[in-house]
Amino acid sequence: MTITITAFERSPDGGKGLARDTRVRWALEEAGLPYDVRLVSFRAMKEPAHLALHPFGQIPTYEEDGLVLFETGAIVFHIATHHGALLPADDHARARAITWLFAALNTVEPPILELVTARIFEGDKPWSKERIPLVEERVRDRLKQLSARLGDADWVDGDFSAGDLMMVSVLLRLRPSGILDEFPVLAAYVARGEARPAYQRAFAAQLAVNAP
Amino acid sequence: MTITITAFERSPDGGKGLARDTRVRWALEEAGLPYDVRLVSFRAMKEPAHLALHPFGQIPTYEEDGLVLFETGAIVFHIATHHGALLPADDHARARAITWLFAALNTVEPPILELVTARIFEGDKPWSKERIPLVEERVRDRLKQLSARLGDADWVDGDFSAGDLMMVSVLLRLRPSGILDEFPVLAAYVARGEARPAYQRAFAAQLAVNAP
Repeated sequence: MTITITAFERSPDGGKGLARDTRVRWALEEAGLPYDVRLVSFRAMKEPAHLALHPFGQIPTYEEDGLVLFETGAIVFHIATHHGALLPADDHARARAITWLFAALNTVEPPILELVTARIFEGDKPWSKERIPLVEERVRDRLKQLSARLGDADWVDGDFSAGDLMMVSVLLRLRPSGILDEFPVLAAYVARGEARPAYQRAFAAQLAVNAP
Repeated sequence: MTITITAFERSPDGGKGLARDTRVRWALEEAGLPYDVRLVSFRAMKEPAHLALHPFGQIPTYEEDGLVLFETGAIVFHIATHHGALLPADDHARARAITWLFAALNTVEPPILELVTARIFEGDKPWSKERIPLVEERVRDRLKQLSARLGDADWVDGDFSAGDLMMVSVLLRLRPSGILDEFPVLAAYVARGEARPAYQRAFAAQLAVNAP
């Protein structure tokens, strides 16, 4: 069985590990699975061959034994369920870990994406200076709640799971803004994620492609 | 086994079915599962008793036999996996249906949420008139891609699945903007979803709580 994922030929972040292939690389490393990477240019991402794999013209995709998946959350979930890592065996604990996977992607990430959009794609707009603090407050609202729930636990619910992998990955996107460091509980949580050997291997692998 | 979900005591949409409990009601109806509803006020949602169930202080939550879940995507997924409806049995087809569940929530919904925020929470800001068309274009970019993939199929990948349930629910949030009707393929897709008896029961149940 060969697993092949796609990644940016050249990541817009220059190797900071914020492109979504890093999340999939991390899950594969936690599961101990070797994988191949096919690099895709921005132009090729919008062409029919890639759109057949990913209808929204993005990376990463995942190919394994005739199965084609897109969407990072689904790929991480597939790795977690089919390769025995990243999800607890107990039924209730497993459902809760999956809950955190969805929470990372649908509750915590959307305001963070809004902030990225506000800074990068609307940074030159006349409203940018006045609007960004509003968007930052929405991010802080979520982080306060997440920080309160995490408290002094190492991970969001018991052992490290796919939920933590995704939550840490989502929070990492905030680092350039400085907001993460306003929440010491969350900054330490992210640091615990980054300290995992599997994360470090994933980070190094994407850096090898994208180093300036 | 008793299933209890939470919903708004009074939904901000006045019964249009756009609050997220409708998605969970729909999944429960597709699975043929009876459920109880506990209504929660906006104030109670931010109090410790509810925050213990839902760390982000929102609805819906899901309680069943000692299991507590939050996050709509996770609840719909749990219903789909544990009650034999909404996900195909074939391994590959199942992974692809899960992919569409994540795609609805993490690729299609975020720009739609941005548009809702731009209209409702920033509608009175000086930049609103100039900015909303930009946000609408981001929504249209996604819809074009989704429409191209759907083509003349009834559902996104084979039979109706949890992926369609979530995608239709996400697209429904666009109806007040008029943008959905610019994409006849998607408008027809949403109409097919709404025509399902399970959706109609779910819609009627939330309307009974929220009718003006």
